[in-house]
Amino acid sequence: MTLTLDHINTVPHAEALALLDGLYEHSPWIAAKALEARPFQSLAHLKYAMTTVLKNAGHQAQLDLIRAHPELAGKAMISQGLTAESTNEQSTAGLTQCSPQEFATIQQLNADYNTRFGFPFILAVRGTRGNGLTRQQIINTFTRRLNNHPEFELAECLRNIHRVVELRLNDKFGMHPTLGDIQWDWHEAMAQYSDPGYKEKGQLTVTYLTDAHRACAAFLESKMHECGFDDVSIDAVGNVVGIYKAQASNAKTLLTGSHYDTVRNGGKYDGRLGILTPMLCVQQLHAQGKRLPFNIEVVGFAEEEGQRYKATFLGSGSLLGDFKPEWLDQKDTDGITMREAMAHAGLNVDDIGLIKRNAADYLGFIEIHVEQGPVLNALDIPLGIVTSINGSVRYLCEITGLASHAGTTPMLTRRDAATAAAEVVLYVEKRAAQDADSVGTVGMLNVPNGSINVVPGRCLFSLDLRAPIDAQRDAMASDVLSEVKAICERRGVTVSFELTERAAAAPSAPAWQQRWEAAVHALGVPLHAMPSGAGHDAMKLHKIMPQAMLFVRGQNSGISHNPLESTTSDDIQLGIDAFMHLLTHLSDETKA
Amino acid sequence: MTLTLDHINTVPHAEALALLDGLYEHSPWIAAKALEARPFQSLAHLKYAMTTVLKNAGHQAQLDLIRAHPELAGKAMISQGLTAESTNEQSTAGLTQCSPQEFATIQQLNADYNTRFGFPFILAVRGTRGNGLTRQQIINTFTRRLNNHPEFELAECLRNIHRVVELRLNDKFGMHPTLGDIQWDWHEAMAQYSDPGYKEKGQLTVTYLTDAHRACAAFLESKMHECGFDDVSIDAVGNVVGIYKAQASNAKTLLTGSHYDTVRNGGKYDGRLGILTPMLCVQQLHAQGKRLPFNIEVVGFAEEEGQRYKATFLGSGSLLGDFKPEWLDQKDTDGITMREAMAHAGLNVDDIGLIKRNAADYLGFIEIHVEQGPVLNALDIPLGIVTSINGSVRYLCEITGLASHAGTTPMLTRRDAATAAAEVVLYVEKRAAQDADSVGTVGMLNVPNGSINVVPGRCLFSLDLRAPIDAQRDAMASDVLSEVKAICERRGVTVSFELTERAAAAPSAPAWQQRWEAAVHALGVPLHAMPSGAGHDAMKLHKIMPQAMLFVRGQNSGISHNPLESTTSDDIQLGIDAFMHLLTHLSDETKA
Repeated sequence: MTLTLDHINTVPHAEALALLDGLYEHSPWIAAKALEARPFQSLAHLKYAMTTVLKNAGHQAQLDLIRAHPELAGKAMISQGLTAESTNEQSTAGLTQCSPQEFATIQQLNADYNTRFGFPFILAVRGTRGNGLTRQQIINTFTRRLNNHPEFELAECLRNIHRVVELRLNDKFGMHPTLGDIQWDWHEAMAQYSDPGYKEKGQLTVTYLTDAHRACAAFLESKMHECGFDDVSIDAVGNVVGIYKAQASNAKTLLTGSHYDTVRNGGKYDGRLGILTPMLCVQQLHAQGKRLPFNIEVVGFAEEEGQRYKATFLGSGSLLGDFKPEWLDQKDTDGITMREAMAHAGLNVDDIGLIKRNAADYLGFIEIHVEQGPVLNALDIPLGIVTSINGSVRYLCEITGLASHAGTTPMLTRRDAATAAAEVVLYVEKRAAQDADSVGTVGMLNVPNGSINVVPGRCLFSLDLRAPIDAQRDAMASDVLSEVKAICERRGVTVSFELTERAAAAPSAPAWQQRWEAAVHALGVPLHAMPSGAGHDAMKLHKIMPQAMLFVRGQNSGISHNPLESTTSDDIQLGIDAFMHLLTHLSDETKA
Repeated sequence: MTLTLDHINTVPHAEALALLDGLYEHSPWIAAKALEARPFQSLAHLKYAMTTVLKNAGHQAQLDLIRAHPELAGKAMISQGLTAESTNEQSTAGLTQCSPQEFATIQQLNADYNTRFGFPFILAVRGTRGNGLTRQQIINTFTRRLNNHPEFELAECLRNIHRVVELRLNDKFGMHPTLGDIQWDWHEAMAQYSDPGYKEKGQLTVTYLTDAHRACAAFLESKMHECGFDDVSIDAVGNVVGIYKAQASNAKTLLTGSHYDTVRNGGKYDGRLGILTPMLCVQQLHAQGKRLPFNIEVVGFAEEEGQRYKATFLGSGSLLGDFKPEWLDQKDTDGITMREAMAHAGLNVDDIGLIKRNAADYLGFIEIHVEQGPVLNALDIPLGIVTSINGSVRYLCEITGLASHAGTTPMLTRRDAATAAAEVVLYVEKRAAQDADSVGTVGMLNVPNGSINVVPGRCLFSLDLRAPIDAQRDAMASDVLSEVKAICERRGVTVSFELTERAAAAPSAPAWQQRWEAAVHALGVPLHAMPSGAGHDAMKLHKIMPQAMLFVRGQNSGISHNPLESTTSDDIQLGIDAFMHLLTHLSDETKA
């Protein structure tokens, strides 16, 4: 029998509990406690209620739950203790068909893992799409996670347990994230295109106007046609533009989109999620024959990452007329100018000016994006409301002291460039933490040609300071620079700064942020408001129209710009659902 | 008229002051105050008295003195303000014959220097041997010193003023550091030999058994013969051994010496000073027909630096039977084994065992060495009494945190490897400073492949911890390692250590340290006792016989393992004088 939420919400507690049997390994108390929060607004609501119960149950209960699980592909799997669900899942992942070598590897990993952490390794072997990881993926994940910090790894096990339960719950309720799965597959399909030198290594790299890049554009163009967009075109800089027309011909337009280029050896979701999600919404509208009181314009921006050429945000910037003609003469590492690359791609440089949009034609800009950070993952919350895209300022710094013999230079007479830099590193950390939502990072730190027996005479480091409001960022930067100078003065070393970037914050337009909030709220998912630490195309559009963003949780601590970037088809589905809610809500507003 | 110390010590103050006229530029008050310390035991005593007056006169008086000097090669030199002495000195250095380009360069340097520091550049243009720097040397020094920290540069100007005065005083007293000059010239002569690839660049590199190395051995052998040593030979590992025999044939032997190999692009004095100084003492004894009640054995050790092969202290170690046979199969970067290099040099590997000394034949081992540190230079003291060669322990460490996005990872959820390392760096500094004479250094510090916008996931660093007593070193090392673990535990990052070196401390034998003290005291030079932070051949001999070392002040903050390593012929002379005092005193002891 397939369960419904209505049923769970209305039957007596004991009956509901029986219906939810077998979710958490030998731990019905979690569902029992979660049921106190009935009625559930959505399956996502029920899932979150259960994660909250476990979160509040304390360390020992969490550990007990983890320890209630058998080892991966262990003997227990065959003989004892494992729930039927677990057996199914491990078997689906092919773990019952390990080669002797794979089996030996996994047993060694089990032993190493247990020695290190004192609990068994938990992995949702059905993966982010629910269709099963390969044995090699399982072994790779196991090996990687062995290096995690114990605290972190405990949390990661709990997240995997919640993922296992999410899939079991989907099965019970006959819920399939159908659109999420489609979109997940589209990400995979796009990830087949990768630049030479990377593709061979199984790495994803799509830089501006390479063959792989143009194949991605062609993919988007073709899928937009399939989805039912009315006008689909590739503009003079390579942006893929799809328009789904409104009921009326004089309607305004809702602009959305994100970028389809990637960093080198990047992830499959960064940018692309913000193109494919609205495409799937249009697909639904078109399938249902629905027209809205506004045009929907989805743009796949050709360039955001600034990898092949130093022309970050080229795609979205061009909609503002921000394309810089001097970029055309920049050469890539093979000596090919951007102008040549554009000609080769059949783009007409003379038409770049025509891309510029008239802001008066637009309602605003919205963008959905993977978080690229650990916040939602750590909170077990699938969607995040962006309050602002942080303003940032960056410096490259060099401290010059006096290199001297580590054995013969007394502590008090040193002019050690590295100890000065160490003070700076800790001050940046402390100062950024003073604000609830500023971040400050020394990402580069290096004593050039350092020797074990030489007091450092030079130390190079970087500063990256970000905050949701420019004034907050500037106050932090001012404090940091003053403190750096004071540290260096006190230590008798000199310092030089090179400002390498300053980007203004882009606070979300309140009305648009509220629309996202309403959409997320409607899904029964908790609201979590947060700044965006990373820059996005919305920063550019911010200059000419109201904008607001929505984040989708990433797996693996939300790692991004990395092949481990990942998100589940369930979370993708929630993003699609939120987007549809926003469109519907906005239609109602516009009509009213 | 040539002055004598007796005269200065006995005439009325005003007369003495008149005789010392023109030492410090327009500042007779320095000599006036110094004369209150009469009688002077030596010219070195008088010199030190004057530096002490200026040291105690305070910052403003020091600045006034510096500002009383005209700019280098400035118009003032020709027209006004410059003492006759200054004019002579600048003219001796050829500064009155600058090319237009050199003149323009110096004027620009003068302007830049004055802008940066607010006082004129002071350089003792007669140099470390008193015979004048070249214009290029002057310009290079000027350019280099422009980068110094203002506090340091002020002290460096004062040191240069003292050097100018030292030379002026030598002139007044008709004092010539004759032996010091000879030895200074020998260092220059030996520095002509340098390994291929370095010699062409004007760099000094003499590694084990290269042609340059063998030329140095031949130079020492030849000079030992000239000095009047009775037996001179090159042993089976390339040590150059000279014996100056005692009166009696059954006498014991005083062992002394140091190494003649160098680091790559090293200095002219490191090691060699400890060979040439006793050679010049023997030259004096021989010239005077004196024999002592003990043999003097001077050894030029062939290898101490471990540059061509990883066989540090090979030369002195062989006297203990510490030569490791497995070294013979080590290859240099050209693939030449040590065995082949020895055969090529005509050394007989089978005789290495014969080098081992019988400790019972020896009184002890003494070694004179440039300080290789900034202590004596900063104190204006020419000689230093070594209390112990520090014990050391070294680690290479790696902190592993979690690389994450600098924009999207909140401060409180980071596992930043670099902030953890920064805490370690500062703890090491603080902990070492707790002991008066321990040193602790993080010389290598690196976030591998760090990016400005990535929270560091890894940080590599080194630990070098040294103290004059092993127990003191071990207590420090234990505290540091505990703290590193505590920092990493608290920050949720992991750390690994690799012990790369542990060397025992070699405290000076009290009787021998006292002999050095007596010798230095006899010269009227203040005693300064200090540990040796660097390792020396005496560490090896320490294992089989009593040892003690004497340090000679280095210029340029005592920099070593660097072409800027430098010392004056006046200081070299004091080293020779101290060594002769020790020999004389030891003769009296031995006779008594």
